[in-house]
Amino acid sequence: MILKITQEEFLERQKNFITKYTKKSIDAAIIFSPIDIFYLTGFHFSATERPICLIVDADQETHMFVPLLEEDHALDNAFVDHVVTYPEYPGERHPMEHLKDILKDLKLANKVIGLDARGYGSPMGYEGPAVEEVFAAKDYVLIPKLVEKMRMVKSDAEVALIEESCRWANLAHQLLQKYTYAGANEIDVVNKVRRDAGWAMIHTLGDRYIPHGQSAFAYYRGQIGKNSAYPHINKPNSIFKRGDTLVTAAGADVFGYGSELERIMFVDEVSPEQEKYFNIATEALELAIDTIKPGIPVSVIDETIRDFFKQENVLKYSLHHVGHALGISHHEAPFFDVGDSTIIEPNMIFTVEPGLYIKGFGGFRHSDTIVVTETGARKLTYYPTDLESLICHTR
Amino acid sequence: MILKITQEEFLERQKNFITKYTKKSIDAAIIFSPIDIFYLTGFHFSATERPICLIVDADQETHMFVPLLEEDHALDNAFVDHVVTYPEYPGERHPMEHLKDILKDLKLANKVIGLDARGYGSPMGYEGPAVEEVFAAKDYVLIPKLVEKMRMVKSDAEVALIEESCRWANLAHQLLQKYTYAGANEIDVVNKVRRDAGWAMIHTLGDRYIPHGQSAFAYYRGQIGKNSAYPHINKPNSIFKRGDTLVTAAGADVFGYGSELERIMFVDEVSPEQEKYFNIATEALELAIDTIKPGIPVSVIDETIRDFFKQENVLKYSLHHVGHALGISHHEAPFFDVGDSTIIEPNMIFTVEPGLYIKGFGGFRHSDTIVVTETGARKLTYYPTDLESLICHTR
Repeated sequence: MILKITQEEFLERQKNFITKYTKKSIDAAIIFSPIDIFYLTGFHFSATERPICLIVDADQETHMFVPLLEEDHALDNAFVDHVVTYPEYPGERHPMEHLKDILKDLKLANKVIGLDARGYGSPMGYEGPAVEEVFAAKDYVLIPKLVEKMRMVKSDAEVALIEESCRWANLAHQLLQKYTYAGANEIDVVNKVRRDAGWAMIHTLGDRYIPHGQSAFAYYRGQIGKNSAYPHINKPNSIFKRGDTLVTAAGADVFGYGSELERIMFVDEVSPEQEKYFNIATEALELAIDTIKPGIPVSVIDETIRDFFKQENVLKYSLHHVGHALGISHHEAPFFDVGDSTIIEPNMIFTVEPGLYIKGFGGFRHSDTIVVTETGARKLTYYPTDLESLICHTR
Repeated sequence: MILKITQEEFLERQKNFITKYTKKSIDAAIIFSPIDIFYLTGFHFSATERPICLIVDADQETHMFVPLLEEDHALDNAFVDHVVTYPEYPGERHPMEHLKDILKDLKLANKVIGLDARGYGSPMGYEGPAVEEVFAAKDYVLIPKLVEKMRMVKSDAEVALIEESCRWANLAHQLLQKYTYAGANEIDVVNKVRRDAGWAMIHTLGDRYIPHGQSAFAYYRGQIGKNSAYPHINKPNSIFKRGDTLVTAAGADVFGYGSELERIMFVDEVSPEQEKYFNIATEALELAIDTIKPGIPVSVIDETIRDFFKQENVLKYSLHHVGHALGISHHEAPFFDVGDSTIIEPNMIFTVEPGLYIKGFGGFRHSDTIVVTETGARKLTYYPTDLESLICHTR
């Protein structure tokens, strides 16, 4: 049972990262993205007003630059050679002034420094200069997508974590369906699911379970009845009624990795029109999964589904592309989108979620998480997609 | 009972925003920050790979630029004059090319455009050019902090929403304490609290409750026993033991606004050393709150607590500043920090959370949410701070 990424794998990622930027004639690097810092070092932290970055110096030693309150946390959890601190933000001296001292100490003045961003950014009240405004290096080169591109093809351990996530998402979804009935309140159902699915998860995995986010969960985000026609409505406080179309979502954090499971469900009864769109969305899901294979551009999947929707005369109800990669971040590049020419490779992980949305009537979208194999795609989510299995019964 | 911000207030904010940038000789504005878009228009959305921005044209008409999948959601929820869409990201044409067409249609080529960021940014696989790379305006002026500064002083309605949040945070915290006992699992307790506190919240407020985030919650983030000494440990899967020091957190989303309530608690018994640090942290909390008043710099609060900790010979255990503003974002500027010279004004809302962290022993931090009054500070959180009230009893 794989429930974490090993130190060896994190160090391997660092080696690959260094190899990649060295090929671009970059001598040292600074990474601000919290997701990429976790990917490279295993250090998972709350991003706040306080800048945090990973520095790889010209001797390929790694330094985690953190506020004092994260020092021990970084020392115990980040696979880096050194932890360096500043007192606080904004502090008597700005954190970027402390960063300047460190870059100077590391003798980076005559080096080419790769950066994923010009400086630290945060919606949490942070304000500060770009790195190049405080420290004069030989040159700065922006490498914003370098680590993100490394994250596209997953290791076997990453696939295992995401598959573990799918297992618990499935349980949460079972409970979501079981607890949903005409008259129930959405928030109440969702909180009950989280409680019971989380209970099962921790009583199964024990202290081997290292969450960096939510234990197993499933929800509706307000996609209930007519509101299911809004793909991202985010207004979760409805009462279920007989005949409601529902669009669900389920997942679970496993060591910082997640998954996505979504289903169209109905409360008690289904009209012929609901069934019609359900059938088209279900057929689109299977068609999309069958189309996925290594060596072709991701755009082919979106084009295939657009053609299918056109043929079914429902293209006007399609509001978004067919899916996205996922892993540490819930949406990652590449996308199953007509405008994305990335070539599919084995061990990429995607959601497959063709959807139809009829304003005033309802939304119809299943989503499965799949891993690309040598010859096609393997479903990691396994909740049923037949209509009979997706009715919520009011007892 | 105030449970939302009215259309009038959102429109008033827009008017103030326009007045502020007009004074800087800016003719039109583009805002990318999801938080600031919500603040100005009431449009709450999931930020993904798909760019979203608010455009205010030179005639002061407002346009929400959204992907197709958000069109109806924006039409029904954003207080703007127009909703303009592009098909999808990356799409056959990049969304920024569509934005270019719109800026051209709005006749902004010979105008000075204020921007909160050079372009859209997202950790979810987005890649794209800066606005100035796709559209030639008369000039671009960066105004990244303009809306954030407007958010510093809260309206009475905003204070009411945050006070409502504190009420439900208090209930969640009561349940957290009640459900915590030696032998219980942290995740299980936290999920149970969310379920029961959420139940009470929706059965009290009904459909007047419009959440944009989590209903009432309380948790430990792994700050249990020795691990309480890590201010932001984020490893939530422990078993409580007799004698554990605990550091809690509680809150609730009310129409996109939150609050913060944190307490030091103990499981069953307290050693003299635990009590010593508990008393100092509690005294520091009251001292900090008593020091807050309009007209003085926020730094004074941090300096006062540093002096107090120095006098108590515990300054070395202090790892962070005394607090932060909050509202739509959980951390906002200004900060109770020696390096922040912002002057305190009535209706600012802050956390007050002086903390002590002794590695290998424990962490000691209460946090209250306060609103600045004409003469001092009024506590919005009201959970007790006396030692006897903060023991979790194993039955």
